Amino acid sequence: MTTSTLAVTVSKISGDSANSLARDLVEDRVAVEVSLEIRVGYSTPLGRTASSISITMRTPGDDAELAIGFLYSESVIQSAGDILSVDHSGPTSPDTGSHNIIRIDLAAHVDIDLGRLQRNFYTTSSCGVCGKSSLDALRIIGAEPLNNDKSEFAKDVLTAMPGALRDQQRAFEQTGGLHAAAAFNSQGEIRVVHEDIGRHNAVDKVIGTLLTRDLLPASDLGLIVSGRASFELMQKTLIAGIPLLAAVSAPSSLAVQLANEFNVSLVGFLRDDTFNIYSAGERIT
Amino acid sequence: MTTSTLAVTVSKISGDSANSLARDLVEDRVAVEVSLEIRVGYSTPLGRTASSISITMRTPGDDAELAIGFLYSESVIQSAGDILSVDHSGPTSPDTGSHNIIRIDLAAHVDIDLGRLQRNFYTTSSCGVCGKSSLDALRIIGAEPLNNDKSEFAKDVLTAMPGALRDQQRAFEQTGGLHAAAAFNSQGEIRVVHEDIGRHNAVDKVIGTLLTRDLLPASDLGLIVSGRASFELMQKTLIAGIPLLAAVSAPSSLAVQLANEFNVSLVGFLRDDTFNIYSAGERIT
Repeated sequence: MTTSTLAVTVSKISGDSANSLARDLVEDRVAVEVSLEIRVGYSTPLGRTASSISITMRTPGDDAELAIGFLYSESVIQSAGDILSVDHSGPTSPDTGSHNIIRIDLAAHVDIDLGRLQRNFYTTSSCGVCGKSSLDALRIIGAEPLNNDKSEFAKDVLTAMPGALRDQQRAFEQTGGLHAAAAFNSQGEIRVVHEDIGRHNAVDKVIGTLLTRDLLPASDLGLIVSGRASFELMQKTLIAGIPLLAAVSAPSSLAVQLANEFNVSLVGFLRDDTFNIYSAGERIT
Repeated sequence: MTTSTLAVTVSKISGDSANSLARDLVEDRVAVEVSLEIRVGYSTPLGRTASSISITMRTPGDDAELAIGFLYSESVIQSAGDILSVDHSGPTSPDTGSHNIIRIDLAAHVDIDLGRLQRNFYTTSSCGVCGKSSLDALRIIGAEPLNNDKSEFAKDVLTAMPGALRDQQRAFEQTGGLHAAAAFNSQGEIRVVHEDIGRHNAVDKVIGTLLTRDLLPASDLGLIVSGRASFELMQKTLIAGIPLLAAVSAPSSLAVQLANEFNVSLVGFLRDDTFNIYSAGERIT
């Protein structure tokens, strides 16, 4: 069985234990971090072949959704019909029970540009799109401003989301070490929620789940993330056609620029009953 | 001039502004996120050549230290003597004033394995080392347990570090959107501190600065990071020969495993006067 947390033995040090140096050895739990290799099988003029296209450090669980969401975010696939099959492979990790290789076989009509993917992934950080101009790169893959949605989100819906998200973070409760992302509707109902040690993975899991439920582009949903809003998260939001990204913490400069240019509503510092609107505030009522 | 924060116009929404929907438009500041391409020049049997080896989303400032620390963390270089020159190139960003390409020319004796680097960087997350077994990968590059240090860190030194770190986080004060990392000694003195939108970049900047000051391996220092402790941060700590990593927040399972196996002291949830010790507690007195 796959687990998202592991038991560790910890010395808990506090003001009291300082003087005596008596250390309380207790069992605690930490969030699991282990690599997942994503392989794709695809057609070429010479027949079927397969390539490893990504290795990410993730928390096991919902690996299929993670891989599907990743392929969608990177514009490799556009619909569930692009996928023939999804299979876990590789040996089972003895400590986490997880299989750490996942293979997605793509339909024959899917045209995959491994060169572009390699350029994109040729990074040390969760970059998403690389090159001289990150915004230009998005234009090149055909991203367009979000203008056709009729979404509106009331202030009270937004301010209720951090609490609703936290209520569903089971593994965070145990470890304090997991990010979360959730898609919610205008009524404030969480439609999909996922946790992961990497924020971008949590978002990929949400997007992958939306795709498998045939809910993309999700022009009627908002996305909330537990931490900061980086360029990469805003990029995934845009590609999924989600008109609003709300972050509990700060956005980056490039996230703000991207949001403005592509008309995505960006909310930051969403806490208690206050938040900041960085772009496209007309969707917030 | 390079800047690490940018002004944006923000609607501040609070309980009061809800009813009237009167929105206070104010100027706020966000942390700058922009890509940095790291290129290396090196010798081959056929002469000198250059390759792009990484693109990372970073906060401009101390780019040379970032690139040098990155090369050291990835075991491309072992000392300042491996570096011939460091030059910024590329056009200046109009909004941030930063040059977003940095080139490091390596001495003729440096043997660079681009194939291994590409495998390592073939990721979407800040993975650091990829493959079926992340710990095996570290053994392969020759990492050894830290056993020769005589470092000891008193409890009171550790509990004072988060406050000391925060005092030196100037850009965080403005934006709430930057991570920080600092190297400190047994007396609790901060020797090097850097901020960045990416934790791994902040750590690379610290390691790069230590290298240029000829302080690596830093067997007498500890490293504190503002967020969580992932495998990648623990890997950088180990490669730099730093015997203690302290995180304000939670560690991951793989960080704990790596710390145990390579005898690095790992401290987490370092807050107020409490913390957890996950490994090698004998260095904490």
